[in-house]
Amino acid sequence: MRNILITIEYDGKNYVGWQMQNNGISVEEKVKTAIEKLVKEEVKLYGSGRTDSGVHALGQAASFYTNSNISADKLPYGINSFLPEDIRVIKAEEKEEDFHARYSAKGKEYVYLIYNRSIMNPIYKGRASHVFYKLDLDKMKRASKSLIGIHDFAGFMGSGSDVKSTVREIYDIDITKDNDLIKIKISGSGFLYNMVRIIVASLIDIGRGRFDENRIEEILETKQRSMANVTAPAVGLYLNKVFY
Amino acid sequence: MRNILITIEYDGKNYVGWQMQNNGISVEEKVKTAIEKLVKEEVKLYGSGRTDSGVHALGQAASFYTNSNISADKLPYGINSFLPEDIRVIKAEEKEEDFHARYSAKGKEYVYLIYNRSIMNPIYKGRASHVFYKLDLDKMKRASKSLIGIHDFAGFMGSGSDVKSTVREIYDIDITKDNDLIKIKISGSGFLYNMVRIIVASLIDIGRGRFDENRIEEILETKQRSMANVTAPAVGLYLNKVFY
Repeated sequence: MRNILITIEYDGKNYVGWQMQNNGISVEEKVKTAIEKLVKEEVKLYGSGRTDSGVHALGQAASFYTNSNISADKLPYGINSFLPEDIRVIKAEEKEEDFHARYSAKGKEYVYLIYNRSIMNPIYKGRASHVFYKLDLDKMKRASKSLIGIHDFAGFMGSGSDVKSTVREIYDIDITKDNDLIKIKISGSGFLYNMVRIIVASLIDIGRGRFDENRIEEILETKQRSMANVTAPAVGLYLNKVFY
Repeated sequence: MRNILITIEYDGKNYVGWQMQNNGISVEEKVKTAIEKLVKEEVKLYGSGRTDSGVHALGQAASFYTNSNISADKLPYGINSFLPEDIRVIKAEEKEEDFHARYSAKGKEYVYLIYNRSIMNPIYKGRASHVFYKLDLDKMKRASKSLIGIHDFAGFMGSGSDVKSTVREIYDIDITKDNDLIKIKISGSGFLYNMVRIIVASLIDIGRGRFDENRIEEILETKQRSMANVTAPAVGLYLNKVFY
């Protein structure tokens, strides 16, 4: 059987997240059904990992085995013909038999968009999170440096998660601003539940002066979730890339 | 009475355009009603000009006279409290008595966004026009230069318009690309009905090789609307700025 890796973009607004759930429609379900309609057989779809309700993707990845002989360059168009317009498969590649979208992943990159102006820009509604406090980008950049490297990120993990280890490696964090739009790009070996959104919320509180610049270091040292800020809204978060 | 100039951003999706019409809800109507609710008196709202159904704005301008003593820096927040989230007043300024948003305007700047990839990006749906043909940006840039200056733009005017003169001045055209997103910025003394969208459609046809590079010059010379392409979709167009 062929093993196919697909890259998927979606606007998360109308979905309960990537993973199938009982409380609403998931992206996974939409993609799985579309593939099955095209290849006319049942498939198991292995996603690179979950994205939460409302989170967007510009580079979600998923793999599946199929007997279909539709060529890889035609697969995206075929699958898309059975998908709603807010989900698009943009690429399909042949992979070796033991490749698995989740277990073969070496890391991920997320982007978080903040529209930072006293009044929200309606064009970015649904695409960026609105922060009306003026944020000090230099403070946020300096504070973010402490996150890079291998750390125990227990203080940045949302509740309700059950993982063996809370140690992860952050490869890089890049904070840039284009007019009123702040872009936080963060890449790492893997991320705990809500980790990116809790990091972003804490950086926002540093940027507006509610937390000191050394707060990130304190959260890493104490591992206390209560030291971090609440979780930043899903609307600004994008799964940008999965590294293989 | 005070004369107030406001700057307005909107997502045009849900509106029949700026100007009040019988066939649906206009942005003008929403803004006028919101101002009246705030200042508790009837106002006449003078827009800088129309935008078509579905066209967005990042810098629409409108002026009105009022007896209200709400300070200019508080007016946007007050008006916004009576507006839907897809329309925002982002600025208010005091102007001299004879200022008029339309007659005092010295020019306008529009931006047109094209998402140029075989498969549309769902994140840009409703914010950019999708062109799946690969566009040659260099050809488009070279061809666009012929538009700069004072010309008779009769060949780039949509039907159903009744103007005395079809001569306008284009100050500048700037075409840039960021990944798959092409941005065409065009500024001028004024624009005829559908002029920006017809120019963009013709540039797209040059970029995909359907028209020769000299087609723009030919349309300017012959003044024949039939020489230009159809009108590019409203979804990619933004009124970016009004110059005073």
